[in-house]
This record gives sequence, C-alpha cells and structure tokens, in this order.
Amino acid sequence: MNSEQLTSQKHAVNPVFHDLNLIRQMNPIIHNITNLVVMQTTANVLLSAGASPIMAHAQNELPEIAALANALVINIGTLDDPWICAINMAQKISLEKKLPIIFDPVGAGATIYRTETARKILATGVTIIRGNASEIMALTNSQISTKGVDSRHQSESAISAAKTLAEQYHCVVVISGATDVVVDQEKTIFIPHGTPLFTKVTGMGCSATALIGAFAAVNANYTLAATHAMTVFSIAGEIAARKTSAPGSFYPALLDALFSMQQNELQNLNINYAAG
Amino acid sequence: MNSEQLTSQKHAVNPVFHDLNLIRQMNPIIHNITNLVVMQTTANVLLSAGASPIMAHAQNELPEIAALANALVINIGTLDDPWICAINMAQKISLEKKLPIIFDPVGAGATIYRTETARKILATGVTIIRGNASEIMALTNSQISTKGVDSRHQSESAISAAKTLAEQYHCVVVISGATDVVVDQEKTIFIPHGTPLFTKVTGMGCSATALIGAFAAVNANYTLAATHAMTVFSIAGEIAARKTSAPGSFYPALLDALFSMQQNELQNLNINYAAG
Amino acid sequence: MNSEQLTSQKHAVNPVFHDLNLIRQMNPIIHNITNLVVMQTTANVLLSAGASPIMAHAQNELPEIAALANALVINIGTLDDPWICAINMAQKISLEKKLPIIFDPVGAGATIYRTETARKILATGVTIIRGNASEIMALTNSQISTKGVDSRHQSESAISAAKTLAEQYHCVVVISGATDVVVDQEKTIFIPHGTPLFTKVTGMGCSATALIGAFAAVNANYTLAATHAMTVFSIAGEIAARKTSAPGSFYPALLDALFSMQQNELQNLNINYAAG
Repeated sequence: MNSEQLTSQKHAVNPVFHDLNLIRQMNPIIHNITNLVVMQTTANVLLSAGASPIMAHAQNELPEIAALANALVINIGTLDDPWICAINMAQKISLEKKLPIIFDPVGAGATIYRTETARKILATGVTIIRGNASEIMALTNSQISTKGVDSRHQSESAISAAKTLAEQYHCVVVISGATDVVVDQEKTIFIPHGTPLFTKVTGMGCSATALIGAFAAVNANYTLAATHAMTVFSIAGEIAARKTSAPGSFYPALLDALFSMQQNELQNLNINYAAG
Repeated sequence: MNSEQLTSQKHAVNPVFHDLNLIRQMNPIIHNITNLVVMQTTANVLLSAGASPIMAHAQNELPEIAALANALVINIGTLDDPWICAINMAQKISLEKKLPIIFDPVGAGATIYRTETARKILATGVTIIRGNASEIMALTNSQISTKGVDSRHQSESAISAAKTLAEQYHCVVVISGATDVVVDQEKTIFIPHGTPLFTKVTGMGCSATALIGAFAAVNANYTLAATHAMTVFSIAGEIAARKTSAPGSFYPALLDALFSMQQNELQNLNINYAAG
Repeated sequence: MNSEQLTSQKHAVNPVFHDLNLIRQMNPIIHNITNLVVMQTTANVLLSAGASPIMAHAQNELPEIAALANALVINIGTLDDPWICAINMAQKISLEKKLPIIFDPVGAGATIYRTETARKILATGVTIIRGNASEIMALTNSQISTKGVDSRHQSESAISAAKTLAEQYHCVVVISGATDVVVDQEKTIFIPHGTPLFTKVTGMGCSATALIGAFAAVNANYTLAATHAMTVFSIAGEIAARKTSAPGSFYPALLDALFSMQQNELQNLNINYAAG
C-alpha cells in the first residue's frame, strides 16, 4: 500500500465511509476489557458506530467470548491484579485466534505498575496501540514521567517513540492529540481534525481506541483501519462541536454525529500521508 | 385477573399511570446487583421514574440492604465469581423476605458460564425474568447459541420458551424486542410499542429490567407490574424518538420523558392480551 | 478569617470565581477512589470544572498516584473489602503528603458496614466531609437509620451533628440539601442555592464531593474551598434548571454550565454566614 492508494479516499469511493458502512452492516462484536470509568461511554460509541460491544472479564468465559468476537480492545485504566489476569488470558486467546488486538496504555508513564503492565502487554503482542504523546513515549523510555493521564504535548519525540514501537512490535501506533498521528513501520499519517472538547469529556481517548477495534474488525489493513477510525471520530467531534461549545451537550452530539454520519461529511478531509 | 380487567387500562383510571404514580409517591428502594457497564444508566432510569436505586454487593451489608429494599434486581452482565457470590446471597435473603426478584440473564446462551449461572439463579427462585429472545431461549435449550447480547429475533419459539420457563419456575417472563411480550402461566401480552433506538444505547434492556423492579415494588400482580413497566418504558422511548432520531440525544430525552410522563401519554395504548 | 472577609465575595474580586479560575488554569489532579455507579459522572464534573480526574485503586500504584495528586476524594458507595484496603492505603499516604482528603460517607447509617467503615475513615483523618443530613447524623449517632442513600431532611440535628464532627475530627463538614450547609469549628454557612433536579440524577452528591476536592486543591482555607465548590455546583444547577425541568437534559446542561461559568453568574449570591 502506498500513499496514492491512501489518498484515493478523497475521490469517488470514500474508503473511510466504506469501512463505516461495513461496520453498520456487519455489526462486528468488539470484546472490551476496559476500565470502570469508561465502560458505558465506550459501549455507546461502539453502538453509535454500528458495532456490538461486549464487556466481559471472567476467565471462565473468555474463550467463548473470544470465539464470538471480531476484535479485542484492552485498556489499562483503573488497573488491578485480577484485571491483569483477565487481560493476559484474553490477549493470549485472541492472539491464537488471530483477532486484531487494540491496546490503550492509559496512564503508562504515570506509575511503574501501568508502565510495566503496558510493556508486558506489548511484548505479548498487539495489533494497534493508541495513546496520547506522553503514554506512547513512556512505552519506550522509562525516563519520562506522565502528569496525569491526559494529553500534554504532541511532538517529534512522540512520533519517534511511535516509530520505535511500530518497528519493535510490528504494530500500528496512534498518537492522539490536536493532530492525531498514525504511525506504522513505513509511514506517518497526520489527521489534523477534531476539537479540544474531546479533552473535556472522560473516556474520549478510550472510545477512540474502541472505535479502532470496530474498524480493525472490518479492515485487515490495520494502518488504514486506525486511520479511518480516527478520521471518523475526529470528524464526528467536529460536527458535534459545531452544535455546542460545552462538554455536557458535546457527548450526546458526538454519538448523534457518529450514528448519522453520511459520506459527504467525510468528503473534504485534510489528511496528510508522509513517507517514513 | 382476566383480560377484561387488563383492558380496563384503556378507560377512566389508567392502571399503568396509577402504578407510575405510586412509584413517584412511594419512591420504592430498588436493590440492584447489576453489571459495571449499566450501573449509572439504570440508576438514572430508576430515579427518573421516581424510584430510589441502591447498588450494593458486599456480603457484609446485603442483609441490611435487603431489609431496606422493596425489590431486588439481578443482572449477570460483566459476571465474575465474586459477583455470583453476592447474587446468591442477595437472592436467598430476598426470597426469605418475599421481595420480588427481577432477573436479567444478560448474555445467557453466549457462554456456558452465563447460561449455567442463569439457570442456577432461576432454580433458586425469581419473580420476573426479562431478556431478549435468544437469552430467553437459551434458558430452556442448551442447543441455541447467542451471537452477542443484543436481540436478534422475536419468534414463536421464544414465546414457547418463555411459556416453558413461566410454568417451570412459576414466574413471569418478558421477551424484549420490536414488540415486547409478557408471558405468564395463563396468558401472553403483546406490547407493540417502543423504538429501534433502544438497541443503539447501552443498558436499555437492563434499564427495562430495573424499571420492572420499581413496578413490582408497587404492584404485587407481577404480570401487570411487568406489563406496566414495559409499557411506560416503551412509550417513553416513543416520546423521545419523536424528539430525536439519534442515540446520543435519545437517552437524555428518554429520561426526560419518563420523568415528565402524564396520563394522557398512556391513553392510546395498543396492547393485546391473548389467552394461553 | 471572619465573616467580613467571607462576604467580600459579593464585591469587586469574586473569591468563588477566583478559585474556579485557579482550577481552570492549574488543572489540579484529583485522585478519586469512588463508587462504580458514579465514576464517569464525577470524572465529567471534574473535567467540566477544569480539574484532571484520576481513578485508581491498585495498591501497587497508590504511592505514585498520591505523588501526582493535589487532593484525594474517598467515596464509600458500592463498598467492598478490597475497596476498603485501597481506601485505607490511599488515605494514609495522602495524610503523609498533607493532601486534602475529601470524604463522602455514602449510605452511612444504612448499614453497619458503611457506618463503621465511615467512622474508621474519619478516625484516620479527613479534611472535609460531605453527605446528606442522615449520613452526617449517622456518623455521630448509631441510633439513627438511613432510608436509602438520598437526602431526606435538613435539620437542626444535622447541623448539630456536623458541628460535633467538625470539632471532634478538626474537619469541615458539608450537609447537602435544599440549602447546603458548611460547618467548621467556628461557623455555619448556609448556601440556599441549587435545584431539586439534583436529587433526580445519580451521582450528584458524589460529584459535589469530587468538586470540593478540586477547590481544596487550589484553596487551603478548606471552609472556603467547600463553600466555593458547593456554591459553584449549586449555581451551575440553577443555570441548568433554567434550561430544562427534567433530569435527562439537566445533567448535560449542568456540565455545560460548569464549563462555561462566568463571573457575572456568581454575582448575586445569597450566602449567609453565621457565627457559631
């Protein structure tokens, strides 16, 4: 896949909308082992996009859940030891079943517990990582500390860290921020869409991760799946932000925009594909 | 109670509204042992209807919670072993206290763990079951597998399964779907109200179950309690769906409709009561 | 600090808005160990006010979380034994670090488990307590039982109990109700603002507690911090209640009002400061 293919999304058949339509038609089942704060929020984002969320963590049923699922989303917010056991087991089963595994390293860099758990999850094998700049950097470099769990800066060093992770773990890395960046072993894709309101509602990053799971369930080109998911989420955010400038009304408007999104709303994208 | 009594709700004193008013006046306390995804959602549905939700699962306090409560709602989404212990204990205490026990077998049929846990809960004793068609069928027949946890079809076989459960466990069974169906040992009631938007918001089935708890707390005729609860919830959904066609704004509109519901909104119901 | 200083907030520089602005500028990190029902709700209230919520309960990371945090919020809804362990550890570390500790004794008086846990937390040391009248009374008097967890009455006996707690534990006590009351060892402050809609949305008391954490993180005069937090939350509720009279649309409107609050909206406050 080269950048011409990628930029084809600006023309006749919009590949972003194509994938969204596949989700709406196929209702892929997305298995989430996620944090206690965002379960409802991410389930609603997945439903609004057309996917079917399952939240399940009991080891007794993880093999059957994995058999039903089209993707696994792992999120380490509100982490504790029983949750780590569930994550480990679900991850191993999903790897065997070759399901895409999307990983959100919430709070990596903020505590050793999160950073080390995140690195073990990476070492076991993931398909796509999505985090903010400081979380992504923390996964490669133990010297950097995170202030909290929200995005602070989006820099060359984050992209460099993402590139390192993409090469080391053969995965796609998404850095969320004012401009979202999708990095794989060959290229760097910039998605300068979205709204600052995303930072004022809890679970928006986690929801982006879950949405990547839905796109990865219908598009096995995981660089494109991640790019399309982040594009749809960012554009839905822009549509919602045109209706309101405050976070309480933003969240329902975001779900509405996701649910109602039409092809013409994905027409004038400003996505830049860079080599390397 | 016969079908003439039931259909009296189309006349002068509306029995559906009568029960809703009782909830608003008495604020029954509904004890929920429910799943992690929907706790907030179902608490808000109960509050909007006038009930007082309590979520509690520690065995140390379950006897005192049961002493305060007017109904118990059990929901097996995000099930795990500690939760099963809490459910077992709460169920036994509530049986002793003759509280109505409303059971939501989320994901029964999807995994053996859920199906077997659900059957044990049934065998211990419940008052009303509410699930979608595949969950209800899974409770009687281990041959059927559920794809996910959302409703797929509403069929004669689901009604037949509900009838079997109603007879075997002396309980009322509610099958949620495009038309909700309430089944007891004697009759089948069809409630062809609601909106497809219910399937696009997480926790709507679980909220219907919780709302049945509130109605069962004020009406000891559990067939009517279940019918009235499903009617109020479906009509609130219709009212909300006239204000919006997307799920993000639907949920707050649903709560508003529940909270503000007046008798005239429950006047032209299209509920069919069938013998057998 | 005397009542003249306190009433200066009606003049030129509004100290309530001053603190809100500090939160917006400094984004204090509020560590919450809270209940499963309200995690999302309280996180969104904190974000809308400008604070940064962290929810974390694993003992492995509590020391590092406390090192990042500017305040600790403890809430005993959906209490269980593992949660008590996390609370105990977080409380001890936060005491060592002299962080303000805000405590919400959800359901104290409803069960012995909650009441005794709450009293142990008090005995260990807290900065500010916020509860409804029956919860506050239960902390001093084992004779009173709570019906559920919502506010029932706001009386002289609650203020008297609050005064006892303030003196015994050297803390500030907030009694939520139609009129919120802030009590310390020297005075009693009445905040007759707010809206009954607060009682129809789950987690509103818990959110007020969390918001006190944000104000305590920027104002070391904890009587004022509690007063300013309750004032901002009550006024945001009034603004939201002018836009809607139903709970579903109230909650997003409340977040919007918090996020958008300007100084002029905090100008005509009706707060009474009484000695003793």
